[in-house]
This record gives sequence, structure tokens and C-alpha cells, in this order.
Amino acid sequence: MTTSGLQSKAINTLRFLSADGVQKANSGHPGLPMGAAAMAYTVWTRHLRHNPRNPKWMGRDRFILSGGHGSMLLYSLLHLSGYDLSLEQLQNFRQWGSLTPGHPEYGLTPGVEVTTGPLGQGFANGVGMAIAAAHLAAVFNKPGHELVDSNIYAIVTDGDLMEGVASEAASLAGHLSLGRLIYLYDDNKISIDGSTDLAFTEDRAKRFEAYGWHIQRVEDGNDVDAIDKAIQAAKTDPRPSLILCRTIIGFGAPTRQGTQKAHGEPLGDEELSAAKSNLGWPQEPRFLIPEDVLAFFHKAIDRGRELEADWNVRCDAYARLYPEPGAEFNRRVIMGNLPDGWESTLPTFPADSKGMATRAASGRVINALAAKLPELIGGSADLAPSNNTKIDGSPAFQKESPEGRNFHFGVREHAMGSILNGMAVYGGVIPYGGTFLVFADYMRSAVRLAALSHYPSIFIFTHDSVGLGEDGPTHQPIEHLTSLRLIPNLVVVRPADANETAKAWKVALSRRDGPTVLALTRQNVPTLETPALVEKGAYVLKDFGAPEIILMASGSEVSLILEAAQNLANEGRGVRVVSFPSWELFEKQDEAYRESVLPKNIQKRLAVEAGATLGWERYAKSVIGIERFGASAPYKIIFEKLGFTVDNIVSKAREL
Amino acid sequence: MTTSGLQSKAINTLRFLSADGVQKANSGHPGLPMGAAAMAYTVWTRHLRHNPRNPKWMGRDRFILSGGHGSMLLYSLLHLSGYDLSLEQLQNFRQWGSLTPGHPEYGLTPGVEVTTGPLGQGFANGVGMAIAAAHLAAVFNKPGHELVDSNIYAIVTDGDLMEGVASEAASLAGHLSLGRLIYLYDDNKISIDGSTDLAFTEDRAKRFEAYGWHIQRVEDGNDVDAIDKAIQAAKTDPRPSLILCRTIIGFGAPTRQGTQKAHGEPLGDEELSAAKSNLGWPQEPRFLIPEDVLAFFHKAIDRGRELEADWNVRCDAYARLYPEPGAEFNRRVIMGNLPDGWESTLPTFPADSKGMATRAASGRVINALAAKLPELIGGSADLAPSNNTKIDGSPAFQKESPEGRNFHFGVREHAMGSILNGMAVYGGVIPYGGTFLVFADYMRSAVRLAALSHYPSIFIFTHDSVGLGEDGPTHQPIEHLTSLRLIPNLVVVRPADANETAKAWKVALSRRDGPTVLALTRQNVPTLETPALVEKGAYVLKDFGAPEIILMASGSEVSLILEAAQNLANEGRGVRVVSFPSWELFEKQDEAYRESVLPKNIQKRLAVEAGATLGWERYAKSVIGIERFGASAPYKIIFEKLGFTVDNIVSKAREL
Repeated sequence: MTTSGLQSKAINTLRFLSADGVQKANSGHPGLPMGAAAMAYTVWTRHLRHNPRNPKWMGRDRFILSGGHGSMLLYSLLHLSGYDLSLEQLQNFRQWGSLTPGHPEYGLTPGVEVTTGPLGQGFANGVGMAIAAAHLAAVFNKPGHELVDSNIYAIVTDGDLMEGVASEAASLAGHLSLGRLIYLYDDNKISIDGSTDLAFTEDRAKRFEAYGWHIQRVEDGNDVDAIDKAIQAAKTDPRPSLILCRTIIGFGAPTRQGTQKAHGEPLGDEELSAAKSNLGWPQEPRFLIPEDVLAFFHKAIDRGRELEADWNVRCDAYARLYPEPGAEFNRRVIMGNLPDGWESTLPTFPADSKGMATRAASGRVINALAAKLPELIGGSADLAPSNNTKIDGSPAFQKESPEGRNFHFGVREHAMGSILNGMAVYGGVIPYGGTFLVFADYMRSAVRLAALSHYPSIFIFTHDSVGLGEDGPTHQPIEHLTSLRLIPNLVVVRPADANETAKAWKVALSRRDGPTVLALTRQNVPTLETPALVEKGAYVLKDFGAPEIILMASGSEVSLILEAAQNLANEGRGVRVVSFPSWELFEKQDEAYRESVLPKNIQKRLAVEAGATLGWERYAKSVIGIERFGASAPYKIIFEKLGFTVDNIVSKAREL
Repeated sequence: MTTSGLQSKAINTLRFLSADGVQKANSGHPGLPMGAAAMAYTVWTRHLRHNPRNPKWMGRDRFILSGGHGSMLLYSLLHLSGYDLSLEQLQNFRQWGSLTPGHPEYGLTPGVEVTTGPLGQGFANGVGMAIAAAHLAAVFNKPGHELVDSNIYAIVTDGDLMEGVASEAASLAGHLSLGRLIYLYDDNKISIDGSTDLAFTEDRAKRFEAYGWHIQRVEDGNDVDAIDKAIQAAKTDPRPSLILCRTIIGFGAPTRQGTQKAHGEPLGDEELSAAKSNLGWPQEPRFLIPEDVLAFFHKAIDRGRELEADWNVRCDAYARLYPEPGAEFNRRVIMGNLPDGWESTLPTFPADSKGMATRAASGRVINALAAKLPELIGGSADLAPSNNTKIDGSPAFQKESPEGRNFHFGVREHAMGSILNGMAVYGGVIPYGGTFLVFADYMRSAVRLAALSHYPSIFIFTHDSVGLGEDGPTHQPIEHLTSLRLIPNLVVVRPADANETAKAWKVALSRRDGPTVLALTRQNVPTLETPALVEKGAYVLKDFGAPEIILMASGSEVSLILEAAQNLANEGRGVRVVSFPSWELFEKQDEAYRESVLPKNIQKRLAVEAGATLGWERYAKSVIGIERFGASAPYKIIFEKLGFTVDNIVSKAREL
């Protein structure tokens, strides 16, 4: 058996493991794996530095299958390379409880670096990873001691390149000259509707050149040596690289290859059988893995062990020469622990009736934390002065200053979200990103994927209600708080004042297994006398006498209900004021705590929130909220017109 | 006064009306109007065909201020040109109840063609308008009788060009060679964070060339003749045109021009005063409109009247020569009426326990309607075979076949949404677009803007629950139905079977003042014996005896509760089955109807929906729903594991 014979067998093994998996599941996408197998083979056997026996080895390269529908290709690579993913799992593709779902899921399957499927996301996640790597390299690497040197490989598809989120991320990657990005474009000229000639005839190479990328073409996407050569050139070029590989979707399937029929459905027994004949592959058994092919792929195990051992030696040498950064690298990057006593740097704010906007408080908190938490880095989608996201005294993260902790994402909310996810999952950094709450809509897919994948991204959404005033309905969130609360595993916190804002940050930073949204005001709110028990989700801010009525609110409306409660108390009524910054956190408390805050025997309850009312019914029968779009006017007038006044709250409470 | 003197005065009038408006409101964006005034002047006084006294004249060109934050520029243009927008309105910029909100709102202010502010949307809306114009031209125009010849002008900004939605739309516009698009790019090199060098250094001209656009540069954005010449060239080029105009943000403001300080806040009295001195403008009065300037702009009134009169003559001549298309043009394009009796073409489906997927039913409905409703056109974001959006027998809408009614939007959900909005607001067409429900997240901003702006776009979201099966959690909507129901003025319909699907289409087509979402199954559902009273939102599908329990559900879960009710009835219980396709439509019914469906005296109620439970509490105390992400498996197994079985429903109902 010649090497090239073995190579061909290895590539066909990837093809037919994938096609057999799809066939057995009777569901899935054989076309991408069959067309892109040689690309994947080249990356995985000639370039990718990884350790199958320790998928979390920090020094590894990352590989992203951005076209997540080709998941069987990734599962095949993982199994063959010696990851803890058995052949039985491949045979259980797309079945309940398997580790091989329809699209790759981070956290579920060892070796899957990010969740992909929704197109464009993996592309943008990789940009985030390359940013994290560039930043950590700038912070930690020393001459001759390059601990952080990951390359980020991806296979990207027509669909990825059509999605706006990828366009945004590509433009930023070019601007930042993220040279560690090496993307192979599976240029198969087929999408679900048919030929890409139907809708996608732009000059892709030229477009990426315009972004500042390094462009190469491989005319035959099955030519391993040509792909190899292109990857080598990509590694030496300082720009991000796109390698356009001309491939044939469903390669080998005699009647379907090169057509959309190969994309998203099983080939069927007959076509699959013909494809095997066509490529000289045995008909039986299904899921055939020739021994020499397995042995060849399994070399990744020893190679990985050596790579990691070598890296550990380098880390030790580094730690000896540079003890302080060495210890910090260990804590922050390898272990991913927060520093002891970081909470003590959280500021507290004295009660103050003038107060400050919670976005301003958030800016103060970020800067108070910044010195103790060097991993805290972030920025805004071109709204830094409004989102208060800037870390004072640190430069911007730019090509010339990758040590900078301040990010200019541009007017690219969606890419920002997906890039934050990539940064978070790379590790060694705790990324945050800001925009207006209403523009959470632009990046909702990224927020959802963070929740689904347990990425600890922090989303700072300021201008969190009609309280933003004059910018008007296009900029005023109404349904956004509730629509975010609907996403499973997302924690939404809307702090009432500066002190709750500090505690909200504590929640976000402590939460390392999922994303957190901070919803912050544009307008000033009083700083209250409050224990700010944000981590409880809701708490008794104050009881006026023995409560017969409960007023509850989040964010900027808390100070309103507090004043209303005082007025009601003056009339001799017993009123409880509940600050309710987070539904999700409250639901996590035990029954006894929840009963202590909202006793069943007090059913006269009024909730006040400057947003949609839906869902507050769970806690209160009566709700003052907003069931329309907002309005352009000074915010105090809007609040008055829409019923967010002490008088109206008092009057509604009296009706109870 | 020389012409060029008058021209300069006219441009300064635009600048200072805008800056004065922002100053008086003490809120807003003076930078764009002051920098782009000459561009706007050139379009509005030398090119734009419109009739200020009939802003809805169908034959007009369209003008879009995609950077909606520069709204005072548009309001100034409208007032000066003689639209029904008084000077008092300009002086009430950003005040409660004014016609001059912070960002332009379609439907509120005469002459505002689309709502802008969220960046990239106006850019993509314009692409939709150009598509509608190209289609109507292909359908109606005859040699020598070009009734449809609108150009679509826009001023677009750095922010627009950074947004993914604009990238997607631009790529499609280039592919389709939409020559009627003439976009002027306000290339001022400043965004909110500072210089565009911070995040946006791509070669924009090259990128748009790669998309297939015609590119021109104007080195001085105040040079009216150069802009004029570029627009003339753009008109003759068959490709969409981008004219890069190098401008200075806040032009004239001595210390702020060319900086981000000019962007988003009032100049302040001192700087504003200095800017007036700088450009030779009188300090007083504020909101100065020199008489000769007003007279000059007011020429648009006579010109507009003549343009429309001429167009009407051409329409009459056309109608005489081509009576049938002439009548159709009048009905469909000018009047925007649906043809008499269109409802009679809605299909009905016989009861059938095997049934069909509601997406398949939707495809049948579209094709049944297509002959009677030639204005019904649409497509999918590269999921046509899955979304069942294809109109049989019509070609694809392409450069060579603009008469085609089938649209290939590519994998560009967000642009699809915004393009549909542009098509809808142009008129003469009823556009629909399809993708998976989970990818509503990608286009949520477009859906929201349709609702806010009352665009009658139709969004077809198939694969509407975990019932899509093996594709898994990345593709399974959980929170999406409810998160869409949260958007004010959006109607969400989730039909239970083929007949409800037909009625859902009737709702969508009848609704001409807002968008409709159709949520449709991937999987087969039985076709029921039902009156399919979708327009009521919810209705009694069947009573088993005198009801003591109400079971309610939407979509694919209705057949489950029907079977559960039969089982409960067999046990001797009285059960009502309510099909609940639309919350919004039900809430529009009068109290008596709602009471007739959900009588207050029957509180034993169970709602069943394969999605988030939040909000169902409004109608039922008990809910079978999903509070987690989905799973990859055959759908029947997922339904079973998550409790969507007849047995579980019966058991939960018994607990009531």
C-alpha cells in the first residue's frame, strides 16, 4: 500500500463513514462530508495540533466545521483520531441521547469546539478565537516562549459566506489582520435551492481581498498536496487566509454528485452502493474502517500526547523564567479560575437620590474590576460612549496593539455576539460586548447559541426601555426583556440602581457555564439603600408595616414603586416592595425563599416594568407595562404618558 | 443672486434647519445633515421625481435616508419641498405627538418612504423596492409605455455598510443587477467610537465591485455638479450604483466638524453660532428659511404635479391600448386592491387522518391562489423545497427574467426580511418569504420593523417546533412563537391542519396594515373536521358532552388534544377542544365571543404547545410545553420524551 493509496483510503473512509451514518439515521447531509473529505483530511493529518486524549489541552489549534450540517464528517474525524467518541455513537447519529446530534454541539461531544449549524456562526466564532489567541499571545508570549500560538482552522461553506454575520466578522478580521485564521472554503457551487448561480454570483475572492484577507485558490478540492501547500502559505502570511477549494458536493455518488440532491438527504441504498463501487469501496460492512486507516489516523494520539508534553515543558520553562506571568498564565488561561478575592474589588455606591444611570454604574464597575481581572476584556458595537464599556488606561485592541482590552467591533452587532462566543470558548478571557437593548434583535442568534452551548459571554444591553427618550420607537425596546427571558439557560439581569449593577456583574462573572444579559438604563436612577441581593433574583427591598400589598419591579421602575409604597404607607396601608432584577435567578431559589419574598397569602400584587407585560402574570395579577411601540419624546414625558408615575402606581395599587 | 449663490443658500438652509432642530430638541444628530446636505440637495432638486402634494403617487422615485439618525435632514427636505409637514413640526422635533420623531417612521410622516434608524435596514429596503419595480416593469411595461420606471435613491452611511443585512442585500442586488438603485454613500470616515480607522478599513469600493455594483467616487461631497454627474452616469449603467462621496461630518461646525463630537449630540449654542458665522449664515432667527430658497425648493410642487399629470396621461394611453393589463395595473398597482372573489380560490381539504404537513398545505394554498393573485410573489432564503414556497409554472426572478415570481434570496434571512418589507411598501406586489422558524432570529429586526411600520409582509416560518426532528436543538424553535407574539402589531398564526392553513393565508392576505407570521409544521398532521375559524384566533373545535374541562392547543398539538379529549370523553368526562391558532386575533374579538370560547366558569384548562409555556397562563392554569432546548432524534421520539403524547395529556387533564 503506497502512502497515496492509504491517503485515498483514509479520505474514502471519511466519506463513507459519513454517508453510512446518514443512511442509517435516514436523515442528514452526506454531500458536504463527501465533497470536503480531502480538505478535512489535509487539515487533520498534516496541520492540526491537538490531543485527542485531552480535547481541552489549551495549547491546541482549533478546528471549526462552520457548515455544521456536515456533522458526520466531524464525528468521523473525531472517532478516527482517537477522541472519546465510539463507533457506536457514529452508528447512533441523530438518535435520542447520542453524542452525535444532527449538528455539532459544544459541551456535548468531546472535540467539538463550537456549536454550528446556523450558518455564519462558526465563521464568526473563529474570528473570536483568533482574537483571544492574539490577545493572550500579546499578553503572555515572550521571545522564544510562545505559549499561545494556536491556529484557527475552519471549513466554511457557501451558506456561511452569504450570511451577514460572516461578512461582518470577515471585515473585522481583515481590519485586525488576524493571521491565525486559516479558512478553507468548500466552494461546491451548490446550495439547497440549486446552483449558487441562482443567488450567489459575487466575486468572493475579490470581496475577501477587499476585506484584507490573503486569498488562494485550489482548483481541485481533492488534491491533498495542493491544499497542503496552500495551508503552508496561509501560515506564513500575516493576514487571515481564505483558501477557495473547488469541490464537488457528494463526490462519488454517481447521479447526485454536484447537485443539490446530494446535500440534505440520505443517498439511498442504491446510490450509496453505486458510490462505493464508483470509488472502489467495499459494499460491506457499513461503517467500514480499514485497520491501516485507523492506525494512520490514530497517530494523532501519540502526536497529540507529544505536542502537549512539549507544550507543558515550555510552560514550565516559561514559569521558571517569568514566575509571575507564569502563575497568572496558569490561573487565568490553563485553569480558567478567577483570582482569589476578586469580589472585594466590586464597588459599592452610597445612597443618593440623584443617583446615576445603571450603564454609568456598569462602566464604573468594569473599571473597578479591570485591574484585578486582566481577563476582563470587551467593547461595543460602535456605541462605547453610550454603553460605558471602555476600560480606562488600556489601548484599543488593534493590529498594532493586540494587548489592548478595548474592542471596537464596528456597527456589527451580530458579529460581535458571535465573536464574543468564540472568545469565551477559547478561554483565558472573559469577554463582554455592548449595544442598545433593542439591537439585541440583530444578534439574537448569537445570544441563543451562547445559551445553548453554555458559553459564558456577557452581553451589555443599555438603553433598556422607553426611558431612552427621544430616539423613539425604532430604538426603544418593548418586548426585548421578555423575549430574552424566554431563551433557556440565559440569565437576564435588570438592576435597579448602581449597587444592584455591581451585584449583577458579580452574577455575570461568577456564572461560567452560560451567558448573562445585563439590561441597563440610559437615564439616571436613584441609588437606593438596598442589600442588592441580585443573586437571589428577587428580594424584599423594604416592608412598610405588615404587608397586605406587594409592589414589584425591575430596573428603573424600582425607585418608582418605592416612592409609591411610601405614599400608600402614609395612607396607612401595609406594603412590601420587591426588587426583581432577574426571573431566572429567582426561579433557581428554593420554595422557602420564594415563599418568603412572595407569600401565597398576599395575592394583592402589582408588577411594574417599562416593557411587555407578558409573563409577569406568573408573579402578579396586575401589571403596569407597555403593549405598544414607544414614542419619541423626552423620557419623563414618555414615562408619564405611559403610566410610569408614582401616582398611577398608587392608584392601580389602591384598585387592588 | 447667482444660481450657485442660491444653491449654496439652499444647502445651508438644509444644514441649519437640521442643526437648529437638534439644538431646540436638545437631542439628535446634526452631523449627518450638515455633511450630507449637498448630496441630498442634488438628489432632491435635480433628480428625484416626486409629487409633494401626493406623496403616494405610484409613479414616483423613492428616496431613503438609510442613516435614519439624520432625520432632521429628511424633515427639512420634506418641509421645504412642500410636503404636508409644517415648520412647527420641525420645531417640535423629537417631541411627544409630533410628526418628527427621532428616527423617520413610515406611515407617520408624509413623504417618509420607510422607517429607518436601525442601520442597514433602509439599504436593504431599497433593494426590495428595486426588485418590486423591476418585476412590475417586466409585467406591465410595454415598448413606449414605461409606466413603472422608478429609481430608488438612498443616502447610506458607514454604519449601513458595516451591517451584515446590507452586505447580504448588496450581494443580491449585484447578482440581480438592479440598475434602478442609486445609492450615495456618505463617506465621512467617522462613526460613534471615532474614526472609521478603528474598525472599518476594508476597501469598500472593491467590495461593492465584487458584488457587481457600478462604483463611482466624488472626492468632494459638497460638489453638487460632481454628484449630479455621477448620478447621471448611475442612471445609464445597468448595474446598481454606489457613489462614494467624501464628506465631512458636521460640515461647518468649527471645532466639531470631521469628528465624532458632531455625530450624535446638539452642537450647543456656541458651536452652532460659530458654524453659522463660518458658513456666512445669519445668527437669527433660528429655523431661517430664506424666501428665495423656499421658492426654489417649492418648484417641486409644480414639477411634481406635472410629473404626475404626465404619468396619468401615459396610464390612460396605456389603458386604451392595453385594456386588460391597464385595468389590472389600476387595480393591483395604483389602487392596491385584491381582486374580487379571490377568497373563492382558497382550497379546502377533506378530513384525512394521515393528513399533510402544514408547510405542504401552505404550498398548495400558494399555488391555488397564484393564478388569481398575480401580485403574490415570494421565495425562500435557500430553503424553497423545505418551505414549500415555490409557485409552479413561474420562472425564478432573475436578471434575465424579472417577470418571475419565485425568489431565490440565498442564505440571507435578514436581507430577505428587509427586502420583503421594501417590496411590500413599494406596492403592487404581496411578498412572502420563507425560512425555518428558528431562523426568525436572524431576521428579527426586519420583522419588528414591519410591525412598527405596518408593512404587510408575510413571513412563512416552517419547521415550527421540535417536531422537525433530527436536525436537533440548533434548528428547533422553543421560545420563538412566544417571542414573536410579544412584538406589537405582529399577527402570528400557527394553523392546526391544512384547512386552518388555508384560512391563515386568508388572514395574511386580508391584513394589509401589518405583517403576518405563518408558523408551519415540517411533519404531517391529520386534516381535521373543522370550521377552521382562524380569523377568530381561537374557536371551539369540538365539545364532548357538557364541558367541565377545556383543552387548548395550536398547530401540530391540536390533533393530540382532540384524541385526548375523545379518551377523556370515553371516561365520561365533558371536554371542550379549543383550537388556538393565534393569540393576537383572539384578543381582537369582543368579550362575548371570548367568553363563549373560554367561559369563566370553566377554569379546568390545559394548554398544549410544543414551545415555551410563558404566556399561556393567560388562558390556562396548566400548560404542557417545553422549558429546555430540544434534542436530535426522530420527532415521534422527541414528542414522546417531552410529554407530547395523548396519554400524557389525558393524565395531566385528569389531574385538573
